[in-house]
Amino acid sequence: MNYTFSDKMKALKPLAIWEILKVASQPGMIPFAAGNPAPETFPVKDIAEISEKILARNPIAALQYGVSEGYTPLREQLVAYLKEAYQIGREFDQLIVTNGAQQVMDLATKILCNEGDTVLSEGFSFIGSLNCFRSYNVNLVGIDIDSDGINLEQLEQALKTERNVRFIYVIPNFQNPTGVTMSLEKRRAVYALAKQYGTLILEDNPYGELRVRGEDLPSIKSMDEDGIVIYAGSFSKILAPGIRVGFALAPAPLIGKMTVGKQTSDVHTPLHSQMLVYEWMTNYDFQGHIAGIQDIYRRKLDLMCDLIESETRGFFRFRKPEGGLFVWCHLPAAVDIPRFCKLSTEHKVAVVPGSAFLADASQTTDTVRMNFSTPTDDKIVAGMKILGKLIESYYSQYI
Amino acid sequence: MNYTFSDKMKALKPLAIWEILKVASQPGMIPFAAGNPAPETFPVKDIAEISEKILARNPIAALQYGVSEGYTPLREQLVAYLKEAYQIGREFDQLIVTNGAQQVMDLATKILCNEGDTVLSEGFSFIGSLNCFRSYNVNLVGIDIDSDGINLEQLEQALKTERNVRFIYVIPNFQNPTGVTMSLEKRRAVYALAKQYGTLILEDNPYGELRVRGEDLPSIKSMDEDGIVIYAGSFSKILAPGIRVGFALAPAPLIGKMTVGKQTSDVHTPLHSQMLVYEWMTNYDFQGHIAGIQDIYRRKLDLMCDLIESETRGFFRFRKPEGGLFVWCHLPAAVDIPRFCKLSTEHKVAVVPGSAFLADASQTTDTVRMNFSTPTDDKIVAGMKILGKLIESYYSQYI
Repeated sequence: MNYTFSDKMKALKPLAIWEILKVASQPGMIPFAAGNPAPETFPVKDIAEISEKILARNPIAALQYGVSEGYTPLREQLVAYLKEAYQIGREFDQLIVTNGAQQVMDLATKILCNEGDTVLSEGFSFIGSLNCFRSYNVNLVGIDIDSDGINLEQLEQALKTERNVRFIYVIPNFQNPTGVTMSLEKRRAVYALAKQYGTLILEDNPYGELRVRGEDLPSIKSMDEDGIVIYAGSFSKILAPGIRVGFALAPAPLIGKMTVGKQTSDVHTPLHSQMLVYEWMTNYDFQGHIAGIQDIYRRKLDLMCDLIESETRGFFRFRKPEGGLFVWCHLPAAVDIPRFCKLSTEHKVAVVPGSAFLADASQTTDTVRMNFSTPTDDKIVAGMKILGKLIESYYSQYI
Repeated sequence: MNYTFSDKMKALKPLAIWEILKVASQPGMIPFAAGNPAPETFPVKDIAEISEKILARNPIAALQYGVSEGYTPLREQLVAYLKEAYQIGREFDQLIVTNGAQQVMDLATKILCNEGDTVLSEGFSFIGSLNCFRSYNVNLVGIDIDSDGINLEQLEQALKTERNVRFIYVIPNFQNPTGVTMSLEKRRAVYALAKQYGTLILEDNPYGELRVRGEDLPSIKSMDEDGIVIYAGSFSKILAPGIRVGFALAPAPLIGKMTVGKQTSDVHTPLHSQMLVYEWMTNYDFQGHIAGIQDIYRRKLDLMCDLIESETRGFFRFRKPEGGLFVWCHLPAAVDIPRFCKLSTEHKVAVVPGSAFLADASQTTDTVRMNFSTPTDDKIVAGMKILGKLIESYYSQYI
């Protein structure tokens, strides 16, 4: 039978990244391509202990149906924590627990966007979010990123000219893939522009706690006096991604609609996962755990950056990020990036060409994204030595 | 701020059922309204033991990111089991693990339906599925249900006249809410009609293992030589709903698109849940456990049906189902059903008016749905005594 698919799924073309990630997951490959958190950051012992407690003390609550907005103690805990730690949340806000932060993007797009409506995002951005927007057949428009965040002139131009801009999607901290952190001034300016043009902001902050240098900046949501920001948070990078716990904090009418959307999508997030996070936040030193993760990532980031400098001798240019999981490298203009990435995987080092992250897939770019959280230190050393040799021989051979 | 929502979310109006279920969950209420499995059916000890094993032996796999199609050992296990136990699945089929079976409906609708396309369903059906279809702004058309399943004449008429019928949604076993089981002849006829008119079937089988009398009938999927059936299964009723594990078995191109859809929705189902189900199916007597659940539900179904007869003395008419979770009762035409249900909750017995389950919300009905799995035996007795008195006093008072 020939199957006919919906227009929105036709709009979501298979992307090169999936082939790359498939190759990247082959055995023996040095994994600079993925964005997995370092497995040594998972608090395995604590999780096993908490899990045992939940199933001993409160098994029926963990195993029966729950409500779509999420496990009430966790929701209350998160609302209190966000307010105290980050001045995030006003009286008009509510919180929904989602199946990872990915589901925040899905529900936000579902409740806000008709096909053809516009979503603005940073020109390079998280593939999962871009594909989510594409799966609703929206008009996805990428805005250039400067070294201090999204370009304001282009953003305002797009707000003026694109039809039905429903929200601006941004990752202000250690942006994926560029590693850029948006300056405080730009955060204020983006908020002001959204307010002026009557649109919403979807602020995605999966890496906020992964700062390894410098001072935290206030989130855009912390400035939200007008009820125009949806804030997406996640436990994937600070606890474990396999449990799939994320959340959205947003004005009550939006959370209400997202709850209805979740009810029809998957009813609720598994309660074992939700109770696990609640227990961990309540009775374990989760802030100490996060500080430990920062130490690990500081070391790995420094290691990779030092090796990029020593091994690629100027061929890879980068701006060292203050956190997150990625180093964004520019290669000389003469390098054919897809060809170089293919060559690299043939030599057992997987990196992703920057083009995979383009909101506008027709553009070109001189970049590759390198992840330092997944590989061990040894693999970082080995992989960077291979890449250093490769870029030199590539140059002598092809250029 | 005034928020504007997408047309598809506007199409999903808040339904009376949510208010009813909110009232029904108040403390002290006898719960004939919900559809929760009996908590005494949860194999708590086994689950605790398996969970401990997973986190001791294989913690990183349980906590790291996984692939969107699901945990490979579970997928392989399910494919083999469906083939062996139910003759379900051909070479052309594949399987995706979902966040409960609800997500099968969501992904199937997402990949197949444009707004305005038609979905045909039984005229009364599972609210979660109906609302899911509505959330994609499809043309939802209900077909009458006879005592042996969906009405074939109406079905064919709809296939002839409705535009772009993308699939026929059916629950062939112990249908929710009517309890009707589709006869073998009708299963064959529905398959033949779908084939003839070039549409797909979405076969939802959450209650298939909950047969307490009579012989199993072949699923429609087991007849699928042409690759036109999407089969949805669930562990919510035989293991536990709080873990959120369901699955779809369907031709590879459909599962491929559903996998892309899941990737943009929530990346993957929590691995702890998936590994739990795999271990349970592999190393525990899950078929013995299901037989135990059938014993519990046979007793509770019989208890409720006996009491409906003895306490309501003919006011509640019903056809005893051979399984599932519900008894579907017709009340005398003179009874104002919403009024009676309101009265009933005021007397601390929660039942759902049949109108909540209508595909076409503008129709009327003389029915209520009664659930026997959630309440204890004592509560079934107490609740039926109250309902018996209520219907009699309602009659003497209002009619």
